[in-house]
Amino acid sequence: MLSKSRVKYIQSLYHKKLRDEEGCFVIEGPKITEEFLLQAPGEILALYAVENWLSNNNTCLKEVNPSCIFLADASDLEKISSRSTPNQVLAIVRKKKDQPETTIHPGLFLMLDGIQDPGNFGTIVRIADWFGISTILCSPECADLYNPKVVQSTMGSLLRVNVIYTLLTDWCKANAGTDIYAATLQGKSIYQCSPLAHGAILMGNESKGVHPELLGFCKEEITIPRTGQAESLNAAVATGIILSHLVKQV
Amino acid sequence: MLSKSRVKYIQSLYHKKLRDEEGCFVIEGPKITEEFLLQAPGEILALYAVENWLSNNNTCLKEVNPSCIFLADASDLEKISSRSTPNQVLAIVRKKKDQPETTIHPGLFLMLDGIQDPGNFGTIVRIADWFGISTILCSPECADLYNPKVVQSTMGSLLRVNVIYTLLTDWCKANAGTDIYAATLQGKSIYQCSPLAHGAILMGNESKGVHPELLGFCKEEITIPRTGQAESLNAAVATGIILSHLVKQV
Repeated sequence: MLSKSRVKYIQSLYHKKLRDEEGCFVIEGPKITEEFLLQAPGEILALYAVENWLSNNNTCLKEVNPSCIFLADASDLEKISSRSTPNQVLAIVRKKKDQPETTIHPGLFLMLDGIQDPGNFGTIVRIADWFGISTILCSPECADLYNPKVVQSTMGSLLRVNVIYTLLTDWCKANAGTDIYAATLQGKSIYQCSPLAHGAILMGNESKGVHPELLGFCKEEITIPRTGQAESLNAAVATGIILSHLVKQV
Repeated sequence: MLSKSRVKYIQSLYHKKLRDEEGCFVIEGPKITEEFLLQAPGEILALYAVENWLSNNNTCLKEVNPSCIFLADASDLEKISSRSTPNQVLAIVRKKKDQPETTIHPGLFLMLDGIQDPGNFGTIVRIADWFGISTILCSPECADLYNPKVVQSTMGSLLRVNVIYTLLTDWCKANAGTDIYAATLQGKSIYQCSPLAHGAILMGNESKGVHPELLGFCKEEITIPRTGQAESLNAAVATGIILSHLVKQV
């Protein structure tokens, strides 16, 4: 059985402030844990799992310091999980170092202005990974990458995509040469756009769209034409559609 | 204050069995309620709202039988809401009549094989509405259209899209002339496909994909080519991308 103080520590990591202070976050479930075991075993600081899962993952676990692996029972996991139905395994993982903005890949990247829903934010990280977009530049109002719901929605893609939080207007001022394409409701049809080799695609907040001040820095506004009657599309779905039309196919 | 029995009745509608028996379901929040007030006021069987919302929506409410409108306070709404943060208004609405399968529009439609996540299912209804797809044929394993999370994710599009539950293999046997295009991981690239004027686009379960038996009825398998490394795309995002490439632009 896990000690009370350990349970309390893990629960504290469901708060951004504590994650920032501790420099680590929680991942939960076999799929994402196995992905971390394969790709970043050295980042796992502690792992709590039921006996069955531990014996099935014996080989992968060889890369993890044995003193970091803890046997847990269902009631332990219930206490430390953030979900209504806790899983078989949960781990504490070191956060990636904050990347300097100069690490932005010279190709195409994403800019997110206030994507606040954790599910949308995580799904967008996963979409970026699918389309080979290696950098996402986010406004500070966006959801936190290490929020448990965001982590879950990325399905492991947070391992491969660089997510950088910065003040977007300041960044745009300092990088005036960047071609920015903003998704709005009255831009050029994406069906008329050619695939982009470089620049940024800017997606706005779920209800308010792109901040007007940011639009001034954009080269062009782009739009997904509507043939039916829904008032809008979900922000992650819109990002997927736009990338499928504007990422160069290799 | 609402009576205990009324609270109990509304809470019962969060269970599919009771919704089916009663022929009604719950909508929550100003946006969707206002959409029902404008488009289908006669279907509203009861409406519970705080004073402020009622006075702001005086005009729309004229279409609703006054005996169906109830003043509620925050503590009432907390009891009858399905959300952690209850809203200002909640209503009980009559379910649409089950549509016969013969009402399928002769154009392009969607088939969903076991889309179980309520958020994905509702988002797909919204995407269909955006692209002018008026019919969705679903396997019985799909989420229930009237589940509160589905209703919320449709953002009102359930008013405009016909969702029909049926055994898909039986339907395919009886409608052998229909051209069905199944989304799989090893089909023809959607970038090579021409827009479709009729037929069905078939999306499979979030983890298992399209049922193998159904694939036998398909004209072609289609795929969203991957340029990066994510293992898969979210089912709703994939549906949005495919429709954006295959729905004929008018």
